[in-house]
Amino acid sequence: MGSLVENAIQRSIDAVIKRDRNAAQEVLDSEQRINSIELEIDALAIDLLALHQPMASNLRFIIAALKINSNLERMGDLSVVIAHSARALIESPAIEPMVDIPYIAGIVQSMVRTSLDAFVSADVDLARSVLASDDAVDNLRTTCFHQLVSFMQKDPQNINPALNLLTVTRTLERLADHSTNIAEDVLFFVSGVDVRHSGGDGTANPR
Amino acid sequence: MGSLVENAIQRSIDAVIKRDRNAAQEVLDSEQRINSIELEIDALAIDLLALHQPMASNLRFIIAALKINSNLERMGDLSVVIAHSARALIESPAIEPMVDIPYIAGIVQSMVRTSLDAFVSADVDLARSVLASDDAVDNLRTTCFHQLVSFMQKDPQNINPALNLLTVTRTLERLADHSTNIAEDVLFFVSGVDVRHSGGDGTANPR
Repeated sequence: MGSLVENAIQRSIDAVIKRDRNAAQEVLDSEQRINSIELEIDALAIDLLALHQPMASNLRFIIAALKINSNLERMGDLSVVIAHSARALIESPAIEPMVDIPYIAGIVQSMVRTSLDAFVSADVDLARSVLASDDAVDNLRTTCFHQLVSFMQKDPQNINPALNLLTVTRTLERLADHSTNIAEDVLFFVSGVDVRHSGGDGTANPR
Repeated sequence: MGSLVENAIQRSIDAVIKRDRNAAQEVLDSEQRINSIELEIDALAIDLLALHQPMASNLRFIIAALKINSNLERMGDLSVVIAHSARALIESPAIEPMVDIPYIAGIVQSMVRTSLDAFVSADVDLARSVLASDDAVDNLRTTCFHQLVSFMQKDPQNINPALNLLTVTRTLERLADHSTNIAEDVLFFVSGVDVRHSGGDGTANPR
């Protein structure tokens, strides 16, 4: 599931940056497979809960897997959103420079990969490093937003492509948020500590 | 949790439609309370799983409650997004007519209320009626989008307010999506049938 979603994100970004129609189509084609794996994983997790009645860290692991599964499915949907924007962007003339999208995309992809690595290796330090990147993405997205608004104000012809680029940057930020959710779920399952809503440093909210 | 989130959505919409600064502030103030109740409910659900090892419909109920809890927390965040747009809109001159936002907001609020009623009363028919409204919201949002783009193209002065109204309509659509998620979780917990990714008619995906 993780690698399907990582691949969908990669191809959706290729579609935007390289104006690659095939990449956009691949993302649209992968959605159904991601949706059906989500259902399979959910059903497996619920069967594990019902049949084995796990305790303590095993229980937390399964709850974390359920939540991560749901985040990954939404990340698949978000790569479809980016692929649709890419298709619209390919129809209009190329915009140079494409603000900071390649740079933001690089950070977001690294957050996604690191959050999944943290889950697989139950690595608290890796998970914390994801939380630290989220603010950087928010700031970059705000800068992009202002650049794109000035670009729209300069010429009404720019409005449609700029709106599509706004969708791409906003969606990249949402992908970063989902990676943060995954990292928080990893911290909860490894340490039994719920770090959500605690200010982003990966401490507090014991339970 | 449900009534706090319903209230936050109501006040965020009041802030947009009535240009009500106090309503926007109330929404920002309610976020922390919603976040802490999310953590409480999660902890309670996990304790129930650990201590009582529930089976069949009780297990499904708790899994549904965990998922609904996570949806409600995000809906609280989305009402904050609307409240921020409202504050920006109040700074600029009023726009008339405010496209179909009051109408869309009415449908979305009804979806939210119905999905929560369906959960409380374990009512499959109510849950299915929520799924039926989701397409209507998507279509209305698309119409709004085109109206707002023409409005931006007419005068660059309109770009900033129109972008805020686009954020409001997009966020209303996401609230509708979360209500749909809740309705799907109700169908799963009541009937043991997973209707996600089945085409929206509330049938199929037995498990």
